[in-house]
Amino acid sequence: MSVLPVNSLETPRFCGIPTFMRLPQATTLEGLDAAIIGIPSDSGAPFRTGARFAPNAVRQMSIMLRPINPYRGNINVFEKLKIADVGDCNTVPGYEIQSLERIEQSVAALVKAGIVPCGIGGDHSVTLAELRAVAAKHGPVALIQFDSHSDTWDKYFAEQRYSAGTPFRRAVEENIVDPHHSIQIGLRGSLFRESDITQSLDLGYEVVTTDQMFEMGIQALADRIATRTAGKPAFITFDMDFVDPAYAPGVETPECGGPSARESLQLLRAMHDINLVGCDVVEISPMYEGPGQITSLLGATVMAELLALLATSR
Amino acid sequence: MSVLPVNSLETPRFCGIPTFMRLPQATTLEGLDAAIIGIPSDSGAPFRTGARFAPNAVRQMSIMLRPINPYRGNINVFEKLKIADVGDCNTVPGYEIQSLERIEQSVAALVKAGIVPCGIGGDHSVTLAELRAVAAKHGPVALIQFDSHSDTWDKYFAEQRYSAGTPFRRAVEENIVDPHHSIQIGLRGSLFRESDITQSLDLGYEVVTTDQMFEMGIQALADRIATRTAGKPAFITFDMDFVDPAYAPGVETPECGGPSARESLQLLRAMHDINLVGCDVVEISPMYEGPGQITSLLGATVMAELLALLATSR
Amino acid sequence: MSVLPVNSLETPRFCGIPTFMRLPQATTLEGLDAAIIGIPSDSGAPFRTGARFAPNAVRQMSIMLRPINPYRGNINVFEKLKIADVGDCNTVPGYEIQSLERIEQSVAALVKAGIVPCGIGGDHSVTLAELRAVAAKHGPVALIQFDSHSDTWDKYFAEQRYSAGTPFRRAVEENIVDPHHSIQIGLRGSLFRESDITQSLDLGYEVVTTDQMFEMGIQALADRIATRTAGKPAFITFDMDFVDPAYAPGVETPECGGPSARESLQLLRAMHDINLVGCDVVEISPMYEGPGQITSLLGATVMAELLALLATSR
Amino acid sequence: MSVLPVNSLETPRFCGIPTFMRLPQATTLEGLDAAIIGIPSDSGAPFRTGARFAPNAVRQMSIMLRPINPYRGNINVFEKLKIADVGDCNTVPGYEIQSLERIEQSVAALVKAGIVPCGIGGDHSVTLAELRAVAAKHGPVALIQFDSHSDTWDKYFAEQRYSAGTPFRRAVEENIVDPHHSIQIGLRGSLFRESDITQSLDLGYEVVTTDQMFEMGIQALADRIATRTAGKPAFITFDMDFVDPAYAPGVETPECGGPSARESLQLLRAMHDINLVGCDVVEISPMYEGPGQITSLLGATVMAELLALLATSR
Amino acid sequence: MSVLPVNSLETPRFCGIPTFMRLPQATTLEGLDAAIIGIPSDSGAPFRTGARFAPNAVRQMSIMLRPINPYRGNINVFEKLKIADVGDCNTVPGYEIQSLERIEQSVAALVKAGIVPCGIGGDHSVTLAELRAVAAKHGPVALIQFDSHSDTWDKYFAEQRYSAGTPFRRAVEENIVDPHHSIQIGLRGSLFRESDITQSLDLGYEVVTTDQMFEMGIQALADRIATRTAGKPAFITFDMDFVDPAYAPGVETPECGGPSARESLQLLRAMHDINLVGCDVVEISPMYEGPGQITSLLGATVMAELLALLATSR
Amino acid sequence: MSVLPVNSLETPRFCGIPTFMRLPQATTLEGLDAAIIGIPSDSGAPFRTGARFAPNAVRQMSIMLRPINPYRGNINVFEKLKIADVGDCNTVPGYEIQSLERIEQSVAALVKAGIVPCGIGGDHSVTLAELRAVAAKHGPVALIQFDSHSDTWDKYFAEQRYSAGTPFRRAVEENIVDPHHSIQIGLRGSLFRESDITQSLDLGYEVVTTDQMFEMGIQALADRIATRTAGKPAFITFDMDFVDPAYAPGVETPECGGPSARESLQLLRAMHDINLVGCDVVEISPMYEGPGQITSLLGATVMAELLALLATSR
Repeated sequence: MSVLPVNSLETPRFCGIPTFMRLPQATTLEGLDAAIIGIPSDSGAPFRTGARFAPNAVRQMSIMLRPINPYRGNINVFEKLKIADVGDCNTVPGYEIQSLERIEQSVAALVKAGIVPCGIGGDHSVTLAELRAVAAKHGPVALIQFDSHSDTWDKYFAEQRYSAGTPFRRAVEENIVDPHHSIQIGLRGSLFRESDITQSLDLGYEVVTTDQMFEMGIQALADRIATRTAGKPAFITFDMDFVDPAYAPGVETPECGGPSARESLQLLRAMHDINLVGCDVVEISPMYEGPGQITSLLGATVMAELLALLATSR
Repeated sequence: MSVLPVNSLETPRFCGIPTFMRLPQATTLEGLDAAIIGIPSDSGAPFRTGARFAPNAVRQMSIMLRPINPYRGNINVFEKLKIADVGDCNTVPGYEIQSLERIEQSVAALVKAGIVPCGIGGDHSVTLAELRAVAAKHGPVALIQFDSHSDTWDKYFAEQRYSAGTPFRRAVEENIVDPHHSIQIGLRGSLFRESDITQSLDLGYEVVTTDQMFEMGIQALADRIATRTAGKPAFITFDMDFVDPAYAPGVETPECGGPSARESLQLLRAMHDINLVGCDVVEISPMYEGPGQITSLLGATVMAELLALLATSR
Repeated sequence: MSVLPVNSLETPRFCGIPTFMRLPQATTLEGLDAAIIGIPSDSGAPFRTGARFAPNAVRQMSIMLRPINPYRGNINVFEKLKIADVGDCNTVPGYEIQSLERIEQSVAALVKAGIVPCGIGGDHSVTLAELRAVAAKHGPVALIQFDSHSDTWDKYFAEQRYSAGTPFRRAVEENIVDPHHSIQIGLRGSLFRESDITQSLDLGYEVVTTDQMFEMGIQALADRIATRTAGKPAFITFDMDFVDPAYAPGVETPECGGPSARESLQLLRAMHDINLVGCDVVEISPMYEGPGQITSLLGATVMAELLALLATSR
Repeated sequence: MSVLPVNSLETPRFCGIPTFMRLPQATTLEGLDAAIIGIPSDSGAPFRTGARFAPNAVRQMSIMLRPINPYRGNINVFEKLKIADVGDCNTVPGYEIQSLERIEQSVAALVKAGIVPCGIGGDHSVTLAELRAVAAKHGPVALIQFDSHSDTWDKYFAEQRYSAGTPFRRAVEENIVDPHHSIQIGLRGSLFRESDITQSLDLGYEVVTTDQMFEMGIQALADRIATRTAGKPAFITFDMDFVDPAYAPGVETPECGGPSARESLQLLRAMHDINLVGCDVVEISPMYEGPGQITSLLGATVMAELLALLATSR
Repeated sequence: MSVLPVNSLETPRFCGIPTFMRLPQATTLEGLDAAIIGIPSDSGAPFRTGARFAPNAVRQMSIMLRPINPYRGNINVFEKLKIADVGDCNTVPGYEIQSLERIEQSVAALVKAGIVPCGIGGDHSVTLAELRAVAAKHGPVALIQFDSHSDTWDKYFAEQRYSAGTPFRRAVEENIVDPHHSIQIGLRGSLFRESDITQSLDLGYEVVTTDQMFEMGIQALADRIATRTAGKPAFITFDMDFVDPAYAPGVETPECGGPSARESLQLLRAMHDINLVGCDVVEISPMYEGPGQITSLLGATVMAELLALLATSR
Repeated sequence: MSVLPVNSLETPRFCGIPTFMRLPQATTLEGLDAAIIGIPSDSGAPFRTGARFAPNAVRQMSIMLRPINPYRGNINVFEKLKIADVGDCNTVPGYEIQSLERIEQSVAALVKAGIVPCGIGGDHSVTLAELRAVAAKHGPVALIQFDSHSDTWDKYFAEQRYSAGTPFRRAVEENIVDPHHSIQIGLRGSLFRESDITQSLDLGYEVVTTDQMFEMGIQALADRIATRTAGKPAFITFDMDFVDPAYAPGVETPECGGPSARESLQLLRAMHDINLVGCDVVEISPMYEGPGQITSLLGATVMAELLALLATSR
């Protein structure tokens, strides 16, 4: 098994069954530093569904990406780290709790083998399962959450405690996230209740709204993230509704008025000094993005930036 | 509250919030003979999802239909029966079992009030909830199932017993369907196991495959249905994948090689002597049907034919 | 100006600004036997709109057609008749009556020059304007109408007398159609009132429903059309909702349960002994047909068959 | 009738026939402070059509919005004001002048009852009808127009005076808008004639082009609007082509190079001291927006901001 | 490596990177009886392009298929034959001749290893490359071509001899097809020249038009195919434009008026006594098929039937 | 032949077969100053294809543009210069080298007649053919390239030297571009190799990445372009992937994180002192842009700005 992606100057990108960035599909976990793992579950989605199809949609568009990242010193992530696409978690559609169990098992297998899990969701509830697996090894992690919603509500519909709207309250309750070293970035839009934002503060999270983010400026925010999470193993979760719907129409809960793709990528590229033990890109719903598939492309680009951040931090 | 649909010769169809066929939206159940009820649940869907959006998609296209049915003696269903659109069941997305409970409660409220429930699903598992409500009043019913799949498998994924693939096995086990007066029509396509069709026969169902249906002819099949269900309260469930995907691309599990819309409607129009106590149209997934929305239009047309059958049988 | 279409074996079909079947765009009317004329008006559309974009959509797909028609003795229509694409009528969107006036003027210019107008609508009200122009020269014509609706209602919305639902009542009142030599083929579906079909009979039209069409058989129906219109100048109007929505999803008023494309083309190819003085294809609404554009392609194919019928009748 | 929207933490948003923001559908006008009213008319559209389907498209996406507005002190608009969705105006498709009459009647019924009309168009000509109704009570109003075009041309096609391109010239002529207290914001793009912008100035309007808007800055512009309209009853009309087509692809006349959704919402949120007597969001054409429906979502978000402005100004 | 497809009753179909029918992706050719090979080339396409994306589109929809074929005695193809998905040929987009060379090499590697190649194109020119590889081992083969066009033209655009319109003339010239044991089925539609159909006859092919096919009947045609190809190694090529565009909108050259999916599948299921040494399904262009992806699903279903025919003939 | 566009205040934009901005379609080259020429070729496209359909897609959306440009002193380009739409180059799909030859011939015919060619591609390789034609008259030109990729790679797939990824290396080798007076603007995103950007510098080009562009500011960059190209005949090539995919989803190689439409148009409008001898807009792939067609509209707007720049520089 080669450890390098297929060379797109020799073989056209449309040739072959697409893996993430044309990486080899793992036949063993041995020797891997990090792994792309699809998490095709949308049972936590309270409105639009279809994130079960996101991992393969992101793979299809990721083949447009090239291996060298000029924003971090022309690093070739795949020469620095051994990364493979390990395929997808198994899930149980329509059964949220059982799906989270299956996902946790798959991610735990990676974590136990010393591999950094890089998940492609899935609705945002899958992050809870990933955090359980990661925290089992590393203890409570510092969460860096890019999201237009806090996802710290308590219960949904008939008192259900597990949903895409609740994972980061559960994670605090389960002591797998340390909120006092965690930060939520990008909140905006209308609220269910006055307490929608204070509920995150009450749990201990730092909150930076979209408006506050622009006031701080990108470099200051990147510095703030590093300070907030310093000394802690960190997990980055990127909900694609962080960006404006023009750049990511194919998401489960679009929220108008967000940053552009360029502003979002600049922020990721400015981040530094993160001890990354896991990450994911979630909430893409491919059937809502139209033929250009720009949401999936942006999701793939975000993941590529997270891999570069990982490579520079090792 | 008027009991008649809005007149589309006076007010353009695009004016107003769409109810089924522009019927009044019920503010009371009193005096109703039948009710259109949306069942927006897709937690039972093992592959494509999105049927949660089907009730409103069907309503939107149903406004193209007119009240008189020339295939049953120019009957005006809405003068013969008092029918309203009662809105949607409440559901719990991502929680199949809880969703079935909520659906059963909503449908039971209609059945107890002497109202024939006419459901717009939803994935096919919702029919189990409807059957529970109907059988609570009428006892085990004769099921008339139009479907390219039998939906009589036992378990799916991690041994889950409730899914769009299992309702008609569960219904026999729960003694809410009498399989010996029931019939499944339209099965076709590839199989999981050799026993996929015999499993229905083993449960007691009569099975007519798509090929057998064409061999029998439409009138003979309509007669056969009447004979099979004679003397029993009957429930008709119409899975939109019964028809060929060209006529219904927006379904959860399309199966190539089915009858045309015309052949399907002819069969419904030929049916007679059915003691109809409930019916539904299920498995439409609107985001897969494209801008023409022909699946939703055909689903609405099928429901209009079921209403006409109901009106002639009373 | 060459009189032959561009040769698609030399120049790829996608090269050049598309005219109907890659015909020359007329710079003069002189010498023309027939003319393709776009009629981009949808002010008569009571529900879905957008037929204003149909002429160019049909042109775009018509470039897939080739000049020889094997169903009428390998005739090359364009060697037999001199035909050009004369562009579009001018119209007044949002002003139905003024649009009909402008359309009538444009078509009359062709008719006066001895040119058979071959219109690409436009909603069905445009046919009234065409008939006015044609009848001004030929007197009341025999109408051959392929349509799932009769379009013989009296008034719509606030007593408006001109709409896509009324042209063939107006045409009788204006004495530009002779209903006693005219025939409506393909009516089906639900009705506004019991009298929806009898209103056409009352006006003098012969009516053949979709069901009756299949009972008669294609050859018998083609013969019947010839007999009905014998001795009269005839105008053929083909409403694309005549065919089933699976074959023509992009129409203004789709009606489920119609004939297939093959059955429809067979009927056109079987027609004979028609003294054709004008024809049109109407009611295509391109934004509802999806990326395959099969409605526009079928519309172009229907027009090509009408041209072949014209060529054989001269 | 409850006066509060359905709680989306209890009942999934996809359950129920969608009204604006899940508000109650009015059964009486009594006691209402403001009303959402759909104005499904596109007879004034000179190019792309389909705004007749916009009111329901906006309703469908508006259900993603929540009741609390954090940009105006966490106000709950629906506790401050009693608002309902009163359904749609009746219209006459294809008959622009008659449509305007019907619309004026519907809106006048609200205005006479002391209810602030909040319209969802419709092409921009519908605003003329709304202004007639509003001015009948309040006298000439101050118009605040967000738009990439001035819509102050004189005549279109065959000398028609009523169209989406002419309402704000007509409004001055009819003395229902006071141009000297009115302002047009966002003009940009190519022009028909050199006088396209000066024609608005000549009528008395203040004009702020897109470029000028960015030069002034958002807060200064908000202040300028307040100053310009001070002491006058004001009507806000928001043409969705004000924003760049990336954020609003589904409009009738897209104009490249506009502000982002974020910039547009910031401006609305900065507005203050407006005596709002009516408002609308117009020119959405849903069939051009693709499956993500981000235009309709942004349109709904704009209307929610206008409601919050209304609530703070009372 | 398991030789059986993933069990879709245990693992949801949307889990995992899709191979054809969830077959194992080959890591070795050893022991294989047949192989699915993608041929992503569209350089031969004279009009619509995009078939380069067809192999993965077909794979994505093929995961809906199940392993047992009830139309051939409930055969489990994958227990009878060892089949894998070997991925895609390498190609050179924009360089037709070089692409054919690369394709021939890839297919030849299979043929030399005794593996029956089952290709998923690609435009129809790729079949020429496959035939070269197959004939190198088996000599001139009997071609069974399902297609609405003959693809036996001589040259296209600037005298190019290799294109989707020419492969079956080239194949005769290269003596890799024996036309006298070959048959073309399904020709229909308008012609470039009178000789379009006779040119195939002149080369020695038997031709059955779509009309003739319906006159013969399906069983008689299946028998005729067996007789025509008796005693010869046979290659089946299925151009998706054989079926009507309603069933296959996503093709490169749609031709209205073809058979339905059901009629097409019936014909494949009736075929018998074929000594199959290779086959393909070609001319799918996924970006034209809309969100339902019914063309790709039908293409996958056709390939599954070809595999079943292969399994019964061994 | 009128030299002015059709007046869209008299004739609705949807009337007539669309030429660029409703310009007259040329019947002679005599007297023309500049010409719009479609270059429908995508044989150079290494990934997404379909640019062969771009010229007509751009024409269709260009009809929304008006003749006066307020950003350059309300200039009416069509009164200043005589411009026509001369239709399309002939091409050879699937044969890259032959296509370039045909394109060069067509463009050379314009250049020789003293007409400035304004091309609508096509993939980016077509610019090489245009440059050959232009340089034959003017000598090596100064290239102003807006593009997220440098397109200066050496070879692709099987050592092919002509592709959308190589034209600006070939152009230097062929001495038709003078790199020392040329500039590439907008490069960004991941790289194949560390040398991807330095390879342009090594050839002599000046390179301004997207990040550098924002650092410089728009006016400074416009000045820099003028300085760099001073004294040289200049050719502007605008690859639509220069802008962010939100504004141009329908391109062959989208690259996330680009400038907005507004920023891009501002840059074009700020440009000055260019001796323009040719220009093009390339890499639009219409089937990826969805129903709003905003990529084609932006492409048309870009071309209109280039025409205004041309008019001011003469």
